[in-house]
Amino acid sequence: MSVSIGTSLENLRQQKPLVHCITNYVTVNDVANALLAVGASPIMADAPEEVAEVVAHCQGLDINIGTLHADSVRAMKVAGQAAMKRGLATVLDPVGVGVSQFRQQAAQGLMQAMHFTAIRGNASELGVLFGLQTTPHGVDVAPCDVIGEENLAQGINFVKAFAKKYNTLAVMTGAIDLVADARTCYVIRNGRPEMGKVTGTGCQLSGILTAFLAANPKQKLEAAASAVCMMGLAGELAYKSEQGNATYRTHIIDALCQMQGAILDKGANYEIH
Amino acid sequence: MSVSIGTSLENLRQQKPLVHCITNYVTVNDVANALLAVGASPIMADAPEEVAEVVAHCQGLDINIGTLHADSVRAMKVAGQAAMKRGLATVLDPVGVGVSQFRQQAAQGLMQAMHFTAIRGNASELGVLFGLQTTPHGVDVAPCDVIGEENLAQGINFVKAFAKKYNTLAVMTGAIDLVADARTCYVIRNGRPEMGKVTGTGCQLSGILTAFLAANPKQKLEAAASAVCMMGLAGELAYKSEQGNATYRTHIIDALCQMQGAILDKGANYEIH
Amino acid sequence: MSVSIGTSLENLRQQKPLVHCITNYVTVNDVANALLAVGASPIMADAPEEVAEVVAHCQGLDINIGTLHADSVRAMKVAGQAAMKRGLATVLDPVGVGVSQFRQQAAQGLMQAMHFTAIRGNASELGVLFGLQTTPHGVDVAPCDVIGEENLAQGINFVKAFAKKYNTLAVMTGAIDLVADARTCYVIRNGRPEMGKVTGTGCQLSGILTAFLAANPKQKLEAAASAVCMMGLAGELAYKSEQGNATYRTHIIDALCQMQGAILDKGANYEIH
Repeated sequence: MSVSIGTSLENLRQQKPLVHCITNYVTVNDVANALLAVGASPIMADAPEEVAEVVAHCQGLDINIGTLHADSVRAMKVAGQAAMKRGLATVLDPVGVGVSQFRQQAAQGLMQAMHFTAIRGNASELGVLFGLQTTPHGVDVAPCDVIGEENLAQGINFVKAFAKKYNTLAVMTGAIDLVADARTCYVIRNGRPEMGKVTGTGCQLSGILTAFLAANPKQKLEAAASAVCMMGLAGELAYKSEQGNATYRTHIIDALCQMQGAILDKGANYEIH
Repeated sequence: MSVSIGTSLENLRQQKPLVHCITNYVTVNDVANALLAVGASPIMADAPEEVAEVVAHCQGLDINIGTLHADSVRAMKVAGQAAMKRGLATVLDPVGVGVSQFRQQAAQGLMQAMHFTAIRGNASELGVLFGLQTTPHGVDVAPCDVIGEENLAQGINFVKAFAKKYNTLAVMTGAIDLVADARTCYVIRNGRPEMGKVTGTGCQLSGILTAFLAANPKQKLEAAASAVCMMGLAGELAYKSEQGNATYRTHIIDALCQMQGAILDKGANYEIH
Repeated sequence: MSVSIGTSLENLRQQKPLVHCITNYVTVNDVANALLAVGASPIMADAPEEVAEVVAHCQGLDINIGTLHADSVRAMKVAGQAAMKRGLATVLDPVGVGVSQFRQQAAQGLMQAMHFTAIRGNASELGVLFGLQTTPHGVDVAPCDVIGEENLAQGINFVKAFAKKYNTLAVMTGAIDLVADARTCYVIRNGRPEMGKVTGTGCQLSGILTAFLAANPKQKLEAAASAVCMMGLAGELAYKSEQGNATYRTHIIDALCQMQGAILDKGANYEIH
């Protein structure tokens, strides 16, 4: 029996996992408040000297390559090894991986050195990791990579192949979000396009995804789908046509904070392929 | 004659001290806006190459170990020495000091190399610095360390002993806040538990505490108590039951901005032991 | 024929330039959301290993020295060279350049090694770069340097001389904003003094200035004036007397997001000297 989308959230709120984030300095505050909003407890640390000890206190590790440095790459490797030894939930967010060799080598080095419970990115980012040709467009998805209704079947096949190749959950977000293991794919239609005007909603999702996985170790695919539905639903509930992107930013995190399992169950808009 | 709680704030708003912050990148923006809100002027700089010059323009130095690096530890030492020479108000915020040897060595190294006007942390953090056994819980207080009515006398004795041992003001925040020198302890019951759902309220408090101390050099204990009452009262005034943590975050800083001495005097909830 | 103030914004919203920011960690999130608000797409990266590749995807480069490190100085130089080769719009924001030799050497080194399309700072910061004696006051303008009606002619002469000497657009912001090339100066009276209680409005302006310049390469002076009018007008539209600085911060970015060319044309308050 699988847990429901809402039950994953209730588990998270009860277990209050500590999540160690090695993440970029652009959106780190929002990631911390988003984690608090869903009921987790964040700790940020990226010095190679301390990350092995820090991760040992935690139930999850979120690695985000948004503003990478040589030192933080080292820290990610050390933290990743420590997380592996303890069997923690681990997430990779390969922000803008196509923009530089430095990011690609860091991401691929991590994927070889450790196992990620889930890898979350847009279609361009996952495409780059998979070895596809793509045209990087900063940290946003390249127009040619967008998944819509017309190429949905292709997208589903891609995420399943990605999940199989890397033995991970593939979480590919965009206008339509896809969450897959090698065999099963959640096709999720929550969220709003205006979320792209708020920096860091993807980073927030990777943070709370880590918390969902940490709190639901036996139902990882469902937990990942719950995290994605929740972020998208928060974006829907927080949206008002007349508001600017900074107020929207605040209200999305508020909506995460106020979300209950029953609301999430009712608002989650997905099908399983 | 001691200055009132509200008078300390009025002094701060008149003197507009410059406060140099070497702080973590998670909550740094909120620390800057909180300092501006109370009437101080923040400057953030953590390169070892420049901190001695930067601190020379300032009246206070706030050191926060939230996201420590080898370079920032060096910068803290250099800035601390320069601050000592000039007799500036100095505050240490030992964020999550129990989570790693790296943080402990950095904090203890600073405490040996320089004098802090005040040290502010939760019960677990001050306990670690004092050499007590504790079970670190990320950057939050460990459940076993929480100070409540039933162990209040013990808490008061602890902060006085801490203040005496390190010749500093001990500022221990939690459900009940304690502000002490070796002989006198303010027991403060401002604040709300929901402040724990907003990342960085402790960091903000350490920042404004530095500003209060810089602006009230002859009444340091009262000034420290004022800062703690003000942060807690801002949390009370900003609170609404139906709001999420991101809006609460914004409204807490707003409340700092709108606070007047008379409101602070009226709302401050403390007794002196 | 010159483009209007509002047309520059419409060009920006159509072209959606990618802007690479090497900026401080205090206000970086607001810079990202401000860029998204005006219709640009931000990417932050400051590792020397990757900045040349990152800037190659972009149309503009914003360099802000707010929290400088030895590594980020190296990255600025590398990114600057790559931006020169590609003819990108480039902006220097010399935050607090007077507070340390480290900042001065970094800023002057950059100004020698590369050409900036525009340099934006307060009167103290531009004065330091020009070699004037000044009394640094943290990251704020020194009281003695403030430009008002009584010394406006002197200010206009200064920015024109600055623009001529460095072959750049001089953007000097304060109570009155001046935007000049060697011959022409926009005197802009948008904005509100309360914007000084929000950290990072200057950093946001430098970010959106880069985007305006990238989207209007043939009308750079007008585009720079548009950016300055827009930031100031956003501060006017977002202002309410009873609100704190954190809500004001949010509403300023909202106002950038909701601004239309016609509103900007109507609200822009400037004369040309």
